[in-house]
Amino acid sequence: MQKPSIMPGFMELKPSEQLEFNRIVDVIRTTYEDFGFQPIDTPIIEKTEVLLAKENGETSKQVYKIEDKGGVMRFDLTVPLARYVAMNVNELTFPFKRYQIGKVYRAERNQAGRFREFYQADIDIIGDGSLGIVNDAEIPAIIYSLFTKLGIGAFVIRINNRKILRGFFDSIGVEDSAEVLRTLDKFDKIGLEAVKEELRQTLNDATIEKILAFINIKGTKAEIIAQLGKLEENELLKQGIEEISLVSKYLGLFNIPEAAVEIDLKIARGLDYYTGTVYETFLLDYENLGSICSGGRYEDLASLYCKKNLPGVGISIGVTRLFYLLREAGILNFGRSCLTEVLIVPMDTQLLDASLALAGTLRSAGIRVEVYSEECKFKKKLDYGNKLGIPYAVIVGEDEVATGIYPLKNMTTGEQEKLSVSDMTNRLIIA
Amino acid sequence: MQKPSIMPGFMELKPSEQLEFNRIVDVIRTTYEDFGFQPIDTPIIEKTEVLLAKENGETSKQVYKIEDKGGVMRFDLTVPLARYVAMNVNELTFPFKRYQIGKVYRAERNQAGRFREFYQADIDIIGDGSLGIVNDAEIPAIIYSLFTKLGIGAFVIRINNRKILRGFFDSIGVEDSAEVLRTLDKFDKIGLEAVKEELRQTLNDATIEKILAFINIKGTKAEIIAQLGKLEENELLKQGIEEISLVSKYLGLFNIPEAAVEIDLKIARGLDYYTGTVYETFLLDYENLGSICSGGRYEDLASLYCKKNLPGVGISIGVTRLFYLLREAGILNFGRSCLTEVLIVPMDTQLLDASLALAGTLRSAGIRVEVYSEECKFKKKLDYGNKLGIPYAVIVGEDEVATGIYPLKNMTTGEQEKLSVSDMTNRLIIA
Repeated sequence: MQKPSIMPGFMELKPSEQLEFNRIVDVIRTTYEDFGFQPIDTPIIEKTEVLLAKENGETSKQVYKIEDKGGVMRFDLTVPLARYVAMNVNELTFPFKRYQIGKVYRAERNQAGRFREFYQADIDIIGDGSLGIVNDAEIPAIIYSLFTKLGIGAFVIRINNRKILRGFFDSIGVEDSAEVLRTLDKFDKIGLEAVKEELRQTLNDATIEKILAFINIKGTKAEIIAQLGKLEENELLKQGIEEISLVSKYLGLFNIPEAAVEIDLKIARGLDYYTGTVYETFLLDYENLGSICSGGRYEDLASLYCKKNLPGVGISIGVTRLFYLLREAGILNFGRSCLTEVLIVPMDTQLLDASLALAGTLRSAGIRVEVYSEECKFKKKLDYGNKLGIPYAVIVGEDEVATGIYPLKNMTTGEQEKLSVSDMTNRLIIA
Repeated sequence: MQKPSIMPGFMELKPSEQLEFNRIVDVIRTTYEDFGFQPIDTPIIEKTEVLLAKENGETSKQVYKIEDKGGVMRFDLTVPLARYVAMNVNELTFPFKRYQIGKVYRAERNQAGRFREFYQADIDIIGDGSLGIVNDAEIPAIIYSLFTKLGIGAFVIRINNRKILRGFFDSIGVEDSAEVLRTLDKFDKIGLEAVKEELRQTLNDATIEKILAFINIKGTKAEIIAQLGKLEENELLKQGIEEISLVSKYLGLFNIPEAAVEIDLKIARGLDYYTGTVYETFLLDYENLGSICSGGRYEDLASLYCKKNLPGVGISIGVTRLFYLLREAGILNFGRSCLTEVLIVPMDTQLLDASLALAGTLRSAGIRVEVYSEECKFKKKLDYGNKLGIPYAVIVGEDEVATGIYPLKNMTTGEQEKLSVSDMTNRLIIA
């Protein structure tokens, strides 16, 4: 007999975990919808020439290719978005606010917390030719709403602006600012000393001191913006400061508490892709988990396929990794495997008909109810409810059917209440 | 410049279509959950030896294989379920009621209405060693609830029992009943004459007449069951009649209207897999679309991997195909592309701050609101709301901000109401 198994690096959950995973996805989705984002769902397999158009060797190695039939499994939701927008550019309404939640595939090295199949939950706002800076403030407003509703603990959104970084580096004479950005991006992982060491490869000590003083500028958003204003003049830096000031102002109009969004000048987001505002999000009690929601502003979404200039701003949540981290940290609650509120338990098979009739009455009042209909020992019937985390049970015996009064058992406390069907209905609707 | 495209045979929707597709999936999912089904989400790529264990050459040709890295993309949700149950058999609670909604892959011949990537939405109830016949009645109760909520028109669920078919065929001396079942299964597609023609290949005219008289037994469930009782005695047939009688009785206890479920003795479901009750579902105004939800009872889910006997009953909805058929038939409504209820339109850029403040107030009352924040002509701003199907717009001008009285425009009728913010909030909460 074969012993079945799944591919290594793929996550598969127990039903109780899956229910909680789905709750998280639902909160993400409804929040995206509440802010007016339109749903799209692109194929998991895309043409090779589309997915690997910007191919750099690195991506290609990690990609799942389809044998014989052609095509490649998507490794993110951004390249498919670019393709989608370019294909439908004349039918879409701009600014195009879209969300997509779906699985993506990367054959990464097999290690704890890294998955080869994982969900991403993305939003992007795409402008036609231009896109107002107010959108850069709407993104953290959405993140704030989302993580507040998720209820997984205190969090902070950290923002920065790539124009500030590039402007500042230009002003102090750093030539390869991309290289420096990549180093700074690792600050949280490798620490101050290692960052210094890496910077020393290309920069002199005086420049390094300036950079360290710069990323050390701390305070409220207003204080940091004031400090930045004192730096040596530079056109790009000036633009960046103007943008982050506006974002800061609009955040207030979105009713985001002052402390929920911080400016952190260390945040660079490695990718060259981003050109303005960038975002990261951290759980305050679990900063070591790293950013759980990141993104930024970019110049042009689909230059490869489309003559229109399509600037945008967006974020992505790696839901599978987030779930894994939250589960490992013990933050999640896996109390139940289904949404059933009441398990109806017939004492024996003759009482199945009466149990089904009772279930019908409760169900038509909108209560989620199951009947345990298999023949077995009474204890095993109640065990079914306990194992699945069903909060209530109703035992149906001959006396109950005769009198119309049923015991409603609270499966957590063990308490029983004797109730008529209509009282039970009211009791459960309130519970 | 590349002209982007997607793989042939893959469905991709416009946002307005996607929103309706998602609504259908949500109705399916919440109905499954209301009946106590537990969610699972298996990987899209499974090990080759798992997916192709029962491989018959036919399946293998249609399957998407992963190059180099190994594995195969799932072609249904049943084989993954068998693998999942076998892997977790000691942790699951039986009867195990699971639902799964996800994409599956089949490289079918490219033709209208057939997709190579499509969603299936499955439920199965799996027993440990045995599974009561009442479960065979719960399945149509769920289908009934689901299609009633979907609101896509009148429908009927047709049931039969493979034991009745096999018992009857045995009793009239048909040797290869599997072959006859496959022929009967095509009745709706090829018609009476073609069925006769096919049956003549192996059967004599007298036998064919008996078969045709048998599948012509019509009437209410009780009438058909009574007719079946008059047929020549046969153990299997007797069992089948007993089962379908019980299912018929339990359907009443599930409060399913008598006319919603018919017995149709022609229904065979081609697969050898099914051994008892079988189901098909038809839209009464569009019978030509074929069955939109089918399934049945089987002996043993995971005999390949697991010593336990795991009988089950389940159904599957091919959601992508269903959506395609409903769209082609003009049954669906694509009125909007997002769920936004109110678009706030600042007359000019100076009024953006006041617009964001108003949006914040409405949003905190639970109203889905967007601010049109781009600089452009006023008409283009309202066009955005019209194109996306947003039902209301609020125009924010200087006078409005000064007086606190805003015009709420119904985008369908064009009517405007002048309202204070609190009146507007109440008005929108009711709408």
